[in-house]
Amino acid sequence: MSAVIRFGVAMEEELLKKFDRLINRKGYANRSEAIRDLIRNNLVEEEWEAGNKETVGTVTIVYSHHVHELTDILTELQHQYHSEIISSMHVHLDVHNCLEVLAVRGKPARIKKIADALISVKGVKHGRLVMTTVGEGL
Amino acid sequence: MSAVIRFGVAMEEELLKKFDRLINRKGYANRSEAIRDLIRNNLVEEEWEAGNKETVGTVTIVYSHHVHELTDILTELQHQYHSEIISSMHVHLDVHNCLEVLAVRGKPARIKKIADALISVKGVKHGRLVMTTVGEGL
Amino acid sequence: MSAVIRFGVAMEEELLKKFDRLINRKGYANRSEAIRDLIRNNLVEEEWEAGNKETVGTVTIVYSHHVHELTDILTELQHQYHSEIISSMHVHLDVHNCLEVLAVRGKPARIKKIADALISVKGVKHGRLVMTTVGEGL
Amino acid sequence: MSAVIRFGVAMEEELLKKFDRLINRKGYANRSEAIRDLIRNNLVEEEWEAGNKETVGTVTIVYSHHVHELTDILTELQHQYHSEIISSMHVHLDVHNCLEVLAVRGKPARIKKIADALISVKGVKHGRLVMTTVGEGL
Repeated sequence: MSAVIRFGVAMEEELLKKFDRLINRKGYANRSEAIRDLIRNNLVEEEWEAGNKETVGTVTIVYSHHVHELTDILTELQHQYHSEIISSMHVHLDVHNCLEVLAVRGKPARIKKIADALISVKGVKHGRLVMTTVGEGL
Repeated sequence: MSAVIRFGVAMEEELLKKFDRLINRKGYANRSEAIRDLIRNNLVEEEWEAGNKETVGTVTIVYSHHVHELTDILTELQHQYHSEIISSMHVHLDVHNCLEVLAVRGKPARIKKIADALISVKGVKHGRLVMTTVGEGL
Repeated sequence: MSAVIRFGVAMEEELLKKFDRLINRKGYANRSEAIRDLIRNNLVEEEWEAGNKETVGTVTIVYSHHVHELTDILTELQHQYHSEIISSMHVHLDVHNCLEVLAVRGKPARIKKIADALISVKGVKHGRLVMTTVGEGL
Repeated sequence: MSAVIRFGVAMEEELLKKFDRLINRKGYANRSEAIRDLIRNNLVEEEWEAGNKETVGTVTIVYSHHVHELTDILTELQHQYHSEIISSMHVHLDVHNCLEVLAVRGKPARIKKIADALISVKGVKHGRLVMTTVGEGL
């Protein structure tokens, strides 16, 4: 872990008041943590845009397990990408619908490809990729 | 499950060709499934904007478990929202960093509040909420 | 204009270095300005989500003026919303295609309605709403 | 303009009803136009991600002209990119604040660079890039 540095930020009083109200509502303990979060968000976006470093994402899908052979297809697909899909979590939403979240590790383009492959399966009603980070240096 | 209806869509040949290439690259079996996905995406967005129906989201957070008391704070927080947080999955990214995904059920505003509460904790490096759906009628 | 306040922010050296590289690449003169921009972005998003204050947006549309009566329909629509549409800019992209940007003022829901109305017109190929701000207090 | 092709789409009645309500609310004349819009949106996103073709974007900025030398700096910057910035529109929001929208043409990376350069200027309170299209073949 690297040393902590302290630096000054200048801001109009009115803007600062609005910011304080916002971070208070969101539950931040102090301005530094809120500002670090804004910065880390920015850096994670850049990392995904650059695309050259290994990172991590989560793929959330909602599907009906009543669709013919869907569970088999999804299992098959996940095994095909077994070296990138680290783990998954399954939630039974109701009699028909399932929520599944997969943690995927790899280069951005590869993670996007895996997300596309899962989301495009017939019977998958909704899918979203979260582009997050391995956390190193953030 | 409701009856399947078939209707016609008119499109310029050039646009259709581009669409076919795109969905082929994404892995869709046919145009109908790709179009249904686009439509369901739109409906899920609307559902979250309307905000009045119970839905489901996933919260992805990346944090360092070396931060003092962080694990306790996160556990405490999750228990506070135990009636909405259905389940969670934990991945050890490296010696320091953890990835955690939580499935959360409730009204949109409530799910957002829980996501904000988790993401704003000091030591949580990155966090994202996926606004998805309970899947009913989609 | 309100008084300028200076406050301290604590950050790990490694994170700060990454941030410095990012804002340097984006062209920021200093950290304060980059941080203020991140904060203002956040506040503008919140303002649109709250939805109760008058604000401003821009609607960008691309369309082919060769589509039968399209220009008339768009003109007609814009006059219908003349009290909210402040001004527009037109660019001739090629023989067929036009880019038009409209500045719209009003409550968020109203601006979204006007954007939807323009983007949904047959012949409008692409449309996007920018949710920005009247700038007061930011 | 290319020939119009008609093809069939299969959809569950319940999903179709929801879609019909949505597009009716948004003002679409018929399903074909709404579906074409969803498809074109997708294609434009892909075009920007691919990044190799000339395209067009609009940059919306809100700033206070009372900030020392800001107008000069923005004018200077715009002239520096005069070969890409096609046109601009200016709106006086109030005594202090201005809204400016610029139409920019070029490769995606170049347009993003120009947007970053403008948005990062001290005194620019908010800025957004709309990634749109030259419309050809859509």
